[in-house]
Amino acid sequence: MKKVLVANRGEIAVRIIRACRELNIETVAVYSDVDADSLHVKIADEAYCIGPALSKESYLNMSNIISVATSTNCDGIHPGYGFLAENADFAELCEACNIKFIGPSYQTIQKMGIKDVAKGLMKEAHVPCVPGSDGIIDTVDEAIQVANDIGYPIIIKAAHGGGGKGIRKAYDEEELIQGFNMTQKEAESAFGNKSVYLEKCIENFRHIEFQILADEYGHVIHLGERDCTIQRRMQKLIEEAPSRVLTERMRQDMGEASVRAAKACDYKGAGTIEFIYDLDANEYYFMEMNTRIQVEHPVTEMVTGIDLVAWQLKIASGVHLTIHQEEVNLNGHAFEFRINAENPFKNFMPTAGRIKDYILPGGFGVRIDSACFNGYAIPPYYDSMVAKLIIHADNRQEAINRSKRALEEFNIGGISSTIPFHLAMLNNEDFNNNNYNTNYLSKHDIMGSIDE
Amino acid sequence: MKKVLVANRGEIAVRIIRACRELNIETVAVYSDVDADSLHVKIADEAYCIGPALSKESYLNMSNIISVATSTNCDGIHPGYGFLAENADFAELCEACNIKFIGPSYQTIQKMGIKDVAKGLMKEAHVPCVPGSDGIIDTVDEAIQVANDIGYPIIIKAAHGGGGKGIRKAYDEEELIQGFNMTQKEAESAFGNKSVYLEKCIENFRHIEFQILADEYGHVIHLGERDCTIQRRMQKLIEEAPSRVLTERMRQDMGEASVRAAKACDYKGAGTIEFIYDLDANEYYFMEMNTRIQVEHPVTEMVTGIDLVAWQLKIASGVHLTIHQEEVNLNGHAFEFRINAENPFKNFMPTAGRIKDYILPGGFGVRIDSACFNGYAIPPYYDSMVAKLIIHADNRQEAINRSKRALEEFNIGGISSTIPFHLAMLNNEDFNNNNYNTNYLSKHDIMGSIDE
Repeated sequence: MKKVLVANRGEIAVRIIRACRELNIETVAVYSDVDADSLHVKIADEAYCIGPALSKESYLNMSNIISVATSTNCDGIHPGYGFLAENADFAELCEACNIKFIGPSYQTIQKMGIKDVAKGLMKEAHVPCVPGSDGIIDTVDEAIQVANDIGYPIIIKAAHGGGGKGIRKAYDEEELIQGFNMTQKEAESAFGNKSVYLEKCIENFRHIEFQILADEYGHVIHLGERDCTIQRRMQKLIEEAPSRVLTERMRQDMGEASVRAAKACDYKGAGTIEFIYDLDANEYYFMEMNTRIQVEHPVTEMVTGIDLVAWQLKIASGVHLTIHQEEVNLNGHAFEFRINAENPFKNFMPTAGRIKDYILPGGFGVRIDSACFNGYAIPPYYDSMVAKLIIHADNRQEAINRSKRALEEFNIGGISSTIPFHLAMLNNEDFNNNNYNTNYLSKHDIMGSIDE
Repeated sequence: MKKVLVANRGEIAVRIIRACRELNIETVAVYSDVDADSLHVKIADEAYCIGPALSKESYLNMSNIISVATSTNCDGIHPGYGFLAENADFAELCEACNIKFIGPSYQTIQKMGIKDVAKGLMKEAHVPCVPGSDGIIDTVDEAIQVANDIGYPIIIKAAHGGGGKGIRKAYDEEELIQGFNMTQKEAESAFGNKSVYLEKCIENFRHIEFQILADEYGHVIHLGERDCTIQRRMQKLIEEAPSRVLTERMRQDMGEASVRAAKACDYKGAGTIEFIYDLDANEYYFMEMNTRIQVEHPVTEMVTGIDLVAWQLKIASGVHLTIHQEEVNLNGHAFEFRINAENPFKNFMPTAGRIKDYILPGGFGVRIDSACFNGYAIPPYYDSMVAKLIIHADNRQEAINRSKRALEEFNIGGISSTIPFHLAMLNNEDFNNNNYNTNYLSKHDIMGSIDE
């Protein structure tokens, strides 16, 4: 691959351009008109405006992006995460235009994007799935019977849903009857398809995901797990590797299941298998697969020493994945803190503004992935990320200490940020004692005792 | 140790404060009046002005520093590098005031600071030394005889000299006769002692130094070498680890010699044994020992994963060094680039000014150690360092590629910097082919072909 168009913005566009430069691949950035002064535009070899601020007119505008790619003779497009990254139509369009989509095939994206199809594939590959109905349930009576078999609480899910919509919990039969009908109606109006299915509701769990790499010749490895349990309203805030809840045996078991999952969908490139890790039963269940690079990929890079974005590019170029499973070692402990332009004292309300007095932390074990700089104004149209602060140390305690000092050094003027939240978590006893699940933030007022 | 005074400024003061914070040690910064807005002042728990800009009135003012340490109840003083770091009187004064000097004993500093005493100790410990006179030479006739035994060219050195003064080369007997008398006279007037000695002049060599760690109980290990051959007028500009000129066997041999050297002078803490590595003979010779942390220590941290400044603090607290020699592994390759406020197109002339449009590189394998930030004005009184850019990757070629992209991203407005020099070196064929010695920059006009 000689020239790659980066169909994204912000820190992930910067991340991809960096990987390209290190591999001597030329880069083409695209940008909306409000992003003309962005860092990804500054550091790319070429940059082209693809439309106005609204994503659907620029970063989601497939024909404009493909036009730039063909007119600049790009042989690949890297979609990053978000925007077009899991859009099978876009991947298919790239293929039709003879441009390598840097990711899995559009067929794989398609399959893994439909919940019941993905779950069926996983079951075939003996990847544990949350107990539930085998496919779509049409009637309330059928639902009651399945719920009695599985046991309450139960989750009713729209098969074509997404983004937290078309999901409902039921703690007893009465709630199930009511919820089933409502979810069907909601699914029909929101997704044009009323299909719903049932799953056991696991309430006390950790979000644990496995990174996999697969080349075009069937060689698949996993790179261990990331624990992304610290979430607020399904948004990850802190990620770490390795997870302290997994035994070495469980890690190996889940890793092998992840490799089977990747093989089952004929995966190519870097992907992530997300699992529910049931803290009561010490069991794991397939949640979903993300068929793209993830925001939190750097924690895996820190503990394995393996450059995931470089491997995405190499695999897409047809290079053999030369790393064998037994060569993957997890060294030390890594955290990622998402520093967002949000006010944790005001319910994480986004704050716009121009960054000033920007002083980044540095030193041993500190990595910053960011597209921000002093004087940069964060546009209100996209996500609120300022920077990812990634910390590596010999063990979790040392990583916590290093994280604290780095967050205390990090100075961002002109806007509010999530830094006070992260410091509060690092000083939180439950966090230090590994005593939390994905609901932790909905049940604890972390900022309550902190002075603004 | 509970509270440490950092008797330094700039990036090394920041480095030490960071290590203290990670070990939950309180920090006291000291500063000259022009440094009131410095980063080391901002991030320390406490900070006190110790005098005006001139070093001898502030950062070299022992009594003012000791006063702050005692009045703030510090139990340790970390001297960093430069200033008082190798001042035996200061180390002795600390001990007299019951404050732990974070470094070796004053006796060790003293011994290793006098060239012929240090060389004598090394010879006893079977550390190879540059062939030369056994101690001081008093007469020209004696000098001629020694020179005939060793062979020309020869170096005449003042025993109490330093800083590049009191050193002279002689290529034949005539030059020796003239040089010997001149060096004696110069030594007497400059150092108050006319003692001189002779050494074989090795012209085609690499500067290779070994990092050692020694605890207070006699356990000593080495952490491999740093190659600091890219120098301009004895000032190191680029350092790397490991060195590509050493075989594994030679590394082990020099490492063992370094451990013997540290034991011979009863060393405690982190220290460096500098060697001349003769490229013609593939032999190494003891040059000197630096009894302190060095500017370029991060390259060793990157390839070993061992935090040297944290170990300095732990060893000074009486902690046992728990790392065994066989546990020290060198992983990948690291470079350090000294980004100085100097104009490489104008003979590295220092440039003063206020930093603006400061954009640091980031991402995988990139570490920045710096005390600078956007809007900071570099005072003209001290060194010209803006930042140390430290790069780590799997091998030398990947580290070179990563270094290039990071240097290209690094934006510093308002002043000139050595970034164009570093990029020129990374694109230089001899540098890439490992074909250079310590004289390289004096013989090649690296910037000649580069557009300003």
